[in-house]
Amino acid sequence: MSPTDSPAPQTGSRPGGRSARVRAAVHRAVEELVADDPTDPLTIPVVAARAGVHSTTVYRRWGSVGELLSDVASSRFSGDIVVPDTGSLRGDLERYASDLAKDLCDPDTLALVRATIGIGGEQGAAACRGERQQQLEAVLERERARDGQPPSLERTTDAVLAPLYYRAVFTDEPLTPEWARALVSHLLPS
Amino acid sequence: MSPTDSPAPQTGSRPGGRSARVRAAVHRAVEELVADDPTDPLTIPVVAARAGVHSTTVYRRWGSVGELLSDVASSRFSGDIVVPDTGSLRGDLERYASDLAKDLCDPDTLALVRATIGIGGEQGAAACRGERQQQLEAVLERERARDGQPPSLERTTDAVLAPLYYRAVFTDEPLTPEWARALVSHLLPS
Repeated sequence: MSPTDSPAPQTGSRPGGRSARVRAAVHRAVEELVADDPTDPLTIPVVAARAGVHSTTVYRRWGSVGELLSDVASSRFSGDIVVPDTGSLRGDLERYASDLAKDLCDPDTLALVRATIGIGGEQGAAACRGERQQQLEAVLERERARDGQPPSLERTTDAVLAPLYYRAVFTDEPLTPEWARALVSHLLPS
Repeated sequence: MSPTDSPAPQTGSRPGGRSARVRAAVHRAVEELVADDPTDPLTIPVVAARAGVHSTTVYRRWGSVGELLSDVASSRFSGDIVVPDTGSLRGDLERYASDLAKDLCDPDTLALVRATIGIGGEQGAAACRGERQQQLEAVLERERARDGQPPSLERTTDAVLAPLYYRAVFTDEPLTPEWARALVSHLLPS
């Protein structure tokens, strides 16, 4: 991609237009740089050089590295886990937990989460949660539609979502599918 | 403090000597800078200027911002929670959970955890856990000495430690003492 520093409107740009191409190139550059060396502090000039765009374009559109990382994380963690109806709350939650475990095991995903948490503040933290809680709420709502009595969203977050994120981000222990399913067993004793 | 760039040996320096003073000044500078603006990327020259030491001193001793943050976090999160013997596992865990909740609620603590996770890699993550798991293991061991049968360390980590860290780092929900104690109730139903 050739360098460009044309004004990139925040909204109203055509999908597939130059604005979308710049966004895609910058997102890809951030993901690659974070994956390459998570301990190397990310800067906007470095991102811009990797993406083949001018730094001013990146500054104008995202403002700061924190906002840029939050935007990348937000795209990355939204809509990526779709839990099919397995017929039971236990089955749905086991599927959700093992899918999320698999996703968080990915070293590139983990590097992006850590980098975004580090510099993105509250906005970055929210971006790393993405739609995980809404996805969980949808699973609980499905159980209510079955006339079941699921645990609360808070309780399910504490019992399933939190250990997955904690183990991935703060420890070097593996997120095995067996362990992920055991989290559900503790929440829903048979 | 006047600038100094004398060789600072990594080991064998006298406690209370110049090496210790430099370490204290640099640690304090990191804590202040992270608390001032968590979204501003930390650099060694900025830390050195705030601490009143030469950048080369900081580079020689810590090597990178990631290692420096890990060292600060490791000091900060070790030995700060001592759980007195309340006479029961439930009492001990409730005390542990509410003390940890209070600590993680502190905005400066949270900023340090996030910054260290962001740039410190695996080493930074381990530094943010600090001695929390050993402290938890000590509480469980105390219960075994009472001839009790406590849950495993893994189970207790998933049920108590993980939700505390997850809520602090990834959400803007409050870590109330009541919620922290409820985590223990779910682990140890009466």
